Amino acid sequence: MEENQKRLEEKIGKVPEIFKELKETDPDLYARVMGLDQMIWADGALSRQTKKIIAIAIAASLRDEHAVRAQMAGAGKLGVAKEEIEEGLRVAFLLAGMPAYVYGKTALEEYLGDRPRK
Amino acid sequence: MEENQKRLEEKIGKVPEIFKELKETDPDLYARVMGLDQMIWADGALSRQTKKIIAIAIAASLRDEHAVRAQMAGAGKLGVAKEEIEEGLRVAFLLAGMPAYVYGKTALEEYLGDRPRK
Amino acid sequence: MEENQKRLEEKIGKVPEIFKELKETDPDLYARVMGLDQMIWADGALSRQTKKIIAIAIAASLRDEHAVRAQMAGAGKLGVAKEEIEEGLRVAFLLAGMPAYVYGKTALEEYLGDRPRK
Amino acid sequence: MEENQKRLEEKIGKVPEIFKELKETDPDLYARVMGLDQMIWADGALSRQTKKIIAIAIAASLRDEHAVRAQMAGAGKLGVAKEEIEEGLRVAFLLAGMPAYVYGKTALEEYLGDRPRK
Amino acid sequence: MEENQKRLEEKIGKVPEIFKELKETDPDLYARVMGLDQMIWADGALSRQTKKIIAIAIAASLRDEHAVRAQMAGAGKLGVAKEEIEEGLRVAFLLAGMPAYVYGKTALEEYLGDRPRK
Amino acid sequence: MEENQKRLEEKIGKVPEIFKELKETDPDLYARVMGLDQMIWADGALSRQTKKIIAIAIAASLRDEHAVRAQMAGAGKLGVAKEEIEEGLRVAFLLAGMPAYVYGKTALEEYLGDRPRK
Repeated sequence: MEENQKRLEEKIGKVPEIFKELKETDPDLYARVMGLDQMIWADGALSRQTKKIIAIAIAASLRDEHAVRAQMAGAGKLGVAKEEIEEGLRVAFLLAGMPAYVYGKTALEEYLGDRPRK
Repeated sequence: MEENQKRLEEKIGKVPEIFKELKETDPDLYARVMGLDQMIWADGALSRQTKKIIAIAIAASLRDEHAVRAQMAGAGKLGVAKEEIEEGLRVAFLLAGMPAYVYGKTALEEYLGDRPRK
Repeated sequence: MEENQKRLEEKIGKVPEIFKELKETDPDLYARVMGLDQMIWADGALSRQTKKIIAIAIAASLRDEHAVRAQMAGAGKLGVAKEEIEEGLRVAFLLAGMPAYVYGKTALEEYLGDRPRK
Repeated sequence: MEENQKRLEEKIGKVPEIFKELKETDPDLYARVMGLDQMIWADGALSRQTKKIIAIAIAASLRDEHAVRAQMAGAGKLGVAKEEIEEGLRVAFLLAGMPAYVYGKTALEEYLGDRPRK
Repeated sequence: MEENQKRLEEKIGKVPEIFKELKETDPDLYARVMGLDQMIWADGALSRQTKKIIAIAIAASLRDEHAVRAQMAGAGKLGVAKEEIEEGLRVAFLLAGMPAYVYGKTALEEYLGDRPRK
Repeated sequence: MEENQKRLEEKIGKVPEIFKELKETDPDLYARVMGLDQMIWADGALSRQTKKIIAIAIAASLRDEHAVRAQMAGAGKLGVAKEEIEEGLRVAFLLAGMPAYVYGKTALEEYLGDRPRK
């Protein structure tokens, strides 16, 4: 797992870098974006885990390879079960086509492939 | 609520009609599509309710007005709470922009607007 | 059929209007766009009819309701068979999700619904 | 012009309603979203007007009819010239296809159609 | 050609792997997906070859690099002519923008580049 | 800067190759596409620079990595300021989600990262 996490962090490492740059050039906008971000991901009527599953399904539906990876990494850290992500991706299949499923599953195997099924 | 459901069924009534037509012209394909559909929506690692929230978030992200409505109607029948759909739409906001949220919220108010918050 | 064609022309009537406006304000751009348009639709390695089927499948996949209708009208005029469009929309189902199929079929029934199957 | 603005406000009136509802149910999120919104639209390296042109081009490229209308209304209020919006839509044509141009031009004529060209 | 096919299979090799995994973890869903897949691609009112051209045009329009490659490989095996795919991509240009054409042509040259034009 | 430009040209080098191929196989279509392309990008009510900013924002909103890079390269050659592109990408954030911003900023740092801020 750790090996995968490291590879992932290299791959999506650009995201924190981008926001680090924003923090320097426009700290006010940075603060607002981060505040909104935290508020949206916080536990509420839906858990953080469920929100990550939704995010992965959206990203896969949009064929957004970077967002799929970033959200998959987040899901991995929060301990979301592979089966749950997989079922979310099936909904993406129905709503956005077989390639949406393939995008999501590819990242699922890449990052959580060594995690035992529940 | 019943009033809303009726209006909804008029609006998304085309979907059942389309599949009715398919049933007549190609019953074999119809059976396969329906079988896959049922399998994907069934309770599993995720509940039917959670799957509807995911579907609404995907449809809103794709600016797919028809799918938003169809899934919202389904969510209404399954008794999904407004707050849960709303939080799913916030994830769509972050991943797919403010208009995705607007698409979803518009349908949410249209179909579940008279449902009391939890 | 004629009834449908008339309704359609009302619905997609904005498209010719837009290009009429362009013709007046920028005749040079208009000429180039129209020239490219004609060249792309002309019979070649693929027939005009096949190109319309492709265009409908793309438009449905993009949930582009206006383009679906405009292309469906064009397909109607060229005498494309309902079955051919329907099979093109199945490919859209697989590549872009069930709602893509629904978008296309809705327009297919709306404009070519009274045409007998081959 | 006023007549158009009124029609527009009816059409996009749902957007303010949605945010009014959010203000009541979650004032904190509302405040953050509005704060971010204002910051993004403010004059900076690009003027408010240029930002509206960009927003219209994006919305048209995404076939996002609601966002096209909402942004077009905003552009109208800020006095953006028709020619500028039109040239932005040509870029959308090149990057996202002829229907993107049609979506944008339809809304342009609908809301700014009675405004004299510069 | 064989050289290209081999490179391709490496690149899109993840797709069969994903479905192999699905076959093990959920053989019932796998059987349904594969059954639907075969039914959609079968010769009918449109030939298998025409369906591949449609699929490539859709995938290019969605900027779906993986699906473009997977469908291009399938088209190569079915002996679809380069000119036909190229004309399908021109329709994608018109409906979804110049980059859609670029996505498709890049894959076309990559996989069928050494195939003589008809 | 020159180092970046060179890297970029390698990366987007496929685009000119594709159009070179088109020039040989279909000089007439090539001439029309290039003519339209030049007309759309020319200075008019909007400057060439502003058009590039719009193009980058559209491409980022569509998660179109190739188009983002190609347009970013063009913006670099025309001397568009980093701050202007950055503000255009914030509009993309609002209209198309945080990942749209990330796509654009990644390319911005990659190609114009060594350019001093104004």
